[in-house]
Amino acid sequence: MDEGLLVVISGPSGAGKGTICKQLLMKMGYMKVSVSATTRKPRQGETEGISYYFIDEEEFINRINNGEFLEYAKVYGNYYGTPKEEVFKQLKAGNDIILEIDIQGALQVKKNYPKGVFIFILPPSLTELKYRIEGRGTDSKEVIFRRMECAYDELNYAFEYDYVVLNDHVEKATEKIKHIILAEKNRAIRNKAIISKIREK
Amino acid sequence: MDEGLLVVISGPSGAGKGTICKQLLMKMGYMKVSVSATTRKPRQGETEGISYYFIDEEEFINRINNGEFLEYAKVYGNYYGTPKEEVFKQLKAGNDIILEIDIQGALQVKKNYPKGVFIFILPPSLTELKYRIEGRGTDSKEVIFRRMECAYDELNYAFEYDYVVLNDHVEKATEKIKHIILAEKNRAIRNKAIISKIREK
Repeated sequence: MDEGLLVVISGPSGAGKGTICKQLLMKMGYMKVSVSATTRKPRQGETEGISYYFIDEEEFINRINNGEFLEYAKVYGNYYGTPKEEVFKQLKAGNDIILEIDIQGALQVKKNYPKGVFIFILPPSLTELKYRIEGRGTDSKEVIFRRMECAYDELNYAFEYDYVVLNDHVEKATEKIKHIILAEKNRAIRNKAIISKIREK
Repeated sequence: MDEGLLVVISGPSGAGKGTICKQLLMKMGYMKVSVSATTRKPRQGETEGISYYFIDEEEFINRINNGEFLEYAKVYGNYYGTPKEEVFKQLKAGNDIILEIDIQGALQVKKNYPKGVFIFILPPSLTELKYRIEGRGTDSKEVIFRRMECAYDELNYAFEYDYVVLNDHVEKATEKIKHIILAEKNRAIRNKAIISKIREK
């Protein structure tokens, strides 16, 4: 293949993006995760440079102004962003990258890098989604209500993605994403070099 | 998914389309093969209604005039065609169909049914392709030469397909096509019904 794949895993908050990405990395160990930068405070168990790069707002805005992000967004009062340099370096080296981001971010990446593979994770139902967000125990009732409203609207964006994967069962959803990644490596547009090789031989 | 997949396996003569399709059917037993009609004489081991519908030229031309083919072509003096009715009935019933056809035919299907999944099988090299056609022992030297010239030109069409799969190893190539089929089932455009279901629940 000409270069690495940028696989964007996205969807409403609480759809299960994080769990799926963890499973995917276990199944496809060679894939690299893109680590985002954020101004959000670390949650319990999160590690600097692995979960996120935790930086303050001043620094984040500086980097926005320097055009250092592939995408960034302010979500529920906090900034999140994907550093360009790291991602492009990996792709050129032929490495596949997973990007786990919200919908606003994914749509920006699509503009900046349309060759990416855009996957929308669907919660099995909005009721199920509510249980999941509540179960996380990190958000107030007001925040949960806002997220549910948001999730309903966000379902409209699913069709701006290449794929939709229903997360009714984490194992099955992860398996589907694995098939998508392996299939995308055979896309005609990603294999221009191969034809000339066959003719030469 | 909204309806069945039409999977078009195509490529130069001798690239290994037939072998790959047989393997694919063993791995994904639920898939149906579309049986083509042809005016070519049966080769040894070929069965009416399974390998092809063998019909005479008058009958074939009648069916062309009645618009009964999804695609048809005259190749090396013989007509080959895919009956529309059978294919569309299966797709509507939610069944996946494999269509093994030459490049002229595949490009016609793409015009008539762009929702299909178009896969171009690449021989590992043109030298290898020559060995394969010769090994089949069914063609004269002149026919082989014509096929080789054709194959060289036909490589240009690979990029009108969705996917290219290198057939350097039948097992591996078949596995890749399996991933493509499973991935395509999650394409956003093929899953419009699912979003409304999630909102209803």
